[in-house]
Amino acid sequence: MRSSAMRDLMAITASPEVISLAGGLPDTSTFPPQSFAAQMTRIAQESAAEALQYGPTEGFEETRDCILQVMGAEGMLPDPHDIIVTTGGQQGIDLVCKTLVDPGDVVICEAPTYPGAVPVFCSYQADVVQVECDEEGMRVGELECLLERLRGEGRRVKFIYTVPTFQNPAGVTMSLARRQYLVELARQQELLVVEDNPYGLLRYGGEPMPPLYQLDGGDFVIYIGTLSKILSPGIRLGWTVAPPPVMEKIVLGKQAADLCTSTLTQYFVREYFREGRWQHYIDDLVEIYRRRRDVMLEALDEHFPAAATWTEPDGGLFIWATLPDYIDTGDLLAKALRADVAFVPGEAAYLDGRGGNSMRLNFSGVSDSEIREGIRRIGQVIAEQVELYQALTGEETPAARPQATPRDDANVLPFRKAAEGGA
Amino acid sequence: MRSSAMRDLMAITASPEVISLAGGLPDTSTFPPQSFAAQMTRIAQESAAEALQYGPTEGFEETRDCILQVMGAEGMLPDPHDIIVTTGGQQGIDLVCKTLVDPGDVVICEAPTYPGAVPVFCSYQADVVQVECDEEGMRVGELECLLERLRGEGRRVKFIYTVPTFQNPAGVTMSLARRQYLVELARQQELLVVEDNPYGLLRYGGEPMPPLYQLDGGDFVIYIGTLSKILSPGIRLGWTVAPPPVMEKIVLGKQAADLCTSTLTQYFVREYFREGRWQHYIDDLVEIYRRRRDVMLEALDEHFPAAATWTEPDGGLFIWATLPDYIDTGDLLAKALRADVAFVPGEAAYLDGRGGNSMRLNFSGVSDSEIREGIRRIGQVIAEQVELYQALTGEETPAARPQATPRDDANVLPFRKAAEGGA
Repeated sequence: MRSSAMRDLMAITASPEVISLAGGLPDTSTFPPQSFAAQMTRIAQESAAEALQYGPTEGFEETRDCILQVMGAEGMLPDPHDIIVTTGGQQGIDLVCKTLVDPGDVVICEAPTYPGAVPVFCSYQADVVQVECDEEGMRVGELECLLERLRGEGRRVKFIYTVPTFQNPAGVTMSLARRQYLVELARQQELLVVEDNPYGLLRYGGEPMPPLYQLDGGDFVIYIGTLSKILSPGIRLGWTVAPPPVMEKIVLGKQAADLCTSTLTQYFVREYFREGRWQHYIDDLVEIYRRRRDVMLEALDEHFPAAATWTEPDGGLFIWATLPDYIDTGDLLAKALRADVAFVPGEAAYLDGRGGNSMRLNFSGVSDSEIREGIRRIGQVIAEQVELYQALTGEETPAARPQATPRDDANVLPFRKAAEGGA
Repeated sequence: MRSSAMRDLMAITASPEVISLAGGLPDTSTFPPQSFAAQMTRIAQESAAEALQYGPTEGFEETRDCILQVMGAEGMLPDPHDIIVTTGGQQGIDLVCKTLVDPGDVVICEAPTYPGAVPVFCSYQADVVQVECDEEGMRVGELECLLERLRGEGRRVKFIYTVPTFQNPAGVTMSLARRQYLVELARQQELLVVEDNPYGLLRYGGEPMPPLYQLDGGDFVIYIGTLSKILSPGIRLGWTVAPPPVMEKIVLGKQAADLCTSTLTQYFVREYFREGRWQHYIDDLVEIYRRRRDVMLEALDEHFPAAATWTEPDGGLFIWATLPDYIDTGDLLAKALRADVAFVPGEAAYLDGRGGNSMRLNFSGVSDSEIREGIRRIGQVIAEQVELYQALTGEETPAARPQATPRDDANVLPFRKAAEGGA
């Protein structure tokens, strides 16, 4: 799926009658309007002129103080001078690529990877190589083999991009052992790792996992964060943490890109954090999203065919489902849209046309009843496809995909059906 | 002056004891805080959840309606579908370059040019060629010769970047004849012109001039606008108007860069325009800035040496001053900063090291008394340099630079001393 098609999809799904499980939208209706009004009134009374003025390219010190609190909540303690405030986390990906990637450089990412990173990598003409994920996240052993092969070919790896926690789109989380292995590998080979962590604080089960940045201490790990999923994406406020020589170039790139991040939204964040309730708001979100995840898992069990498999995430916004091989989720989407329901076809998460029988499903931005109804509709469209296949081939529903065994499965995600055992 | 030095300059001048004539800051203290509070309260009451959510990559339709009003005030009537909302006008420059420039492509701009465009052109590895300005803006006759020469060399010109009205940094405005000539040239040679017009509505004297976009009708002119100078730079809200095939790529570039422009600041703009007072606010700004321009011109007359020349702008934010050849404004800045005053050394507006004896002076973001005191301090530092020169060489103050005659002066700006005749 090309990114223009992705954009069209987002436009179609903006229509109110469509149940969209396609976006990566948090539920901003849970944010208390009176709190919003109070913060903005305070800004108007105390600092309207400053809030409307340009700000420093790196962001305000007060914004970086808020960022330190968020990172601290996940056990990270960066030097504030290593932080730049960006126009959303997306700009962090763009600036890191702008700073580091020359055409033809190799960038390694997960398979599947964040669909929004794909056009960025492509725009800087990176040669993207994807490493399979399984239930423990990126297969770091495979990564090591790949690195060796690339070294043998004399090719230069600029960085490894990963969403280790509640991955977008797969919903999987990298195990502690793999995290330690990856950080060690980066250190030994003096390789940069770009850790994109928008969802770390949205955990619905299991034990917190140290971010790569914490394990590494910031020597080889560049960190990308955002307030989009724990406060608001409409304020476009993210950040990047990088060591000084990289940061200097990122700041110049930021200045050329948009001079500075909105002062107004930075002041909003400052006032919001002053209230001291930001973690309570995340607690509220976690309650809501946990329930929605459970509702979606139940609905999948009920409405998806036996041959389908899906991930069972411990946090974040997404479930990744895989259908029988003979179903193309791009075609399926066209049919689903006629039934007023949308998802992201899996192909958007690959650079080589794989993922054609998979889909990303979002459960954070829709109500329980919409989740149930949306999954029911998708299930029905799938059922029609399955019936058609059976009628044409005379076959029964193909057996469930055998559980992936590490190392010998070309397309590791999805793995076992969630209903057959917890992830 | 490297852009990192430029950034350091902006950081130094943030210190309250420094009178900074360096920035391109509008005076946001003139914006009524009660209006700001009322708009934000309305957003909180009516649409907090939407204001905090992601928005469409192209921007909201309501934002584009506001943009149509602003462009309409200068006689332009674009198709709303040709408009994309950007994170400030700066992002427009970046996206146009991202969309159009391949490494080695020629980009033509004015000499001097907007200092903030220089790092963008460089980051896309454009081969930048600068065409001299005089009191009537870019010398379009010279441009024509340049285009012929480049064609002869088989080099590809991607676009001509110009700030035709109240140019940054020179303060000059392209004459109607040159505008018509430029648009005709673009049409004949099927060349794109990128018109950057942040200041068009800030006119303090003379007659309004049609934007290139209006003359051309949008076939070969890509237009970049912003609310930074007529409302607020802290909201980071600009726009680009381009024909559909270019726009499609710009939208993809925008999506990769930061997904969308802040919904919150777009909603603020919507509410602000609903009040129907946006043009009155510009009227207020025009009154204030006209007086500040006059104060600065008077102060220059009083405190700058006879050998200095400067432009006398009919609008915008900047005066461009040129000192005797033997003065390096980069060195001068170091001395000026010790006297707690700052300006932008002219070298930042050239890509080839020229402009070393010139400076950009901002009059919009500082009070009358700061302007007088700032210019007095700079005048004093210059006087010391002049005395030192005379002591070392035994020469009297060199005569004022002869007035530029078109075509045969290698460095046309600055021209005559403003006091010797109105611009």
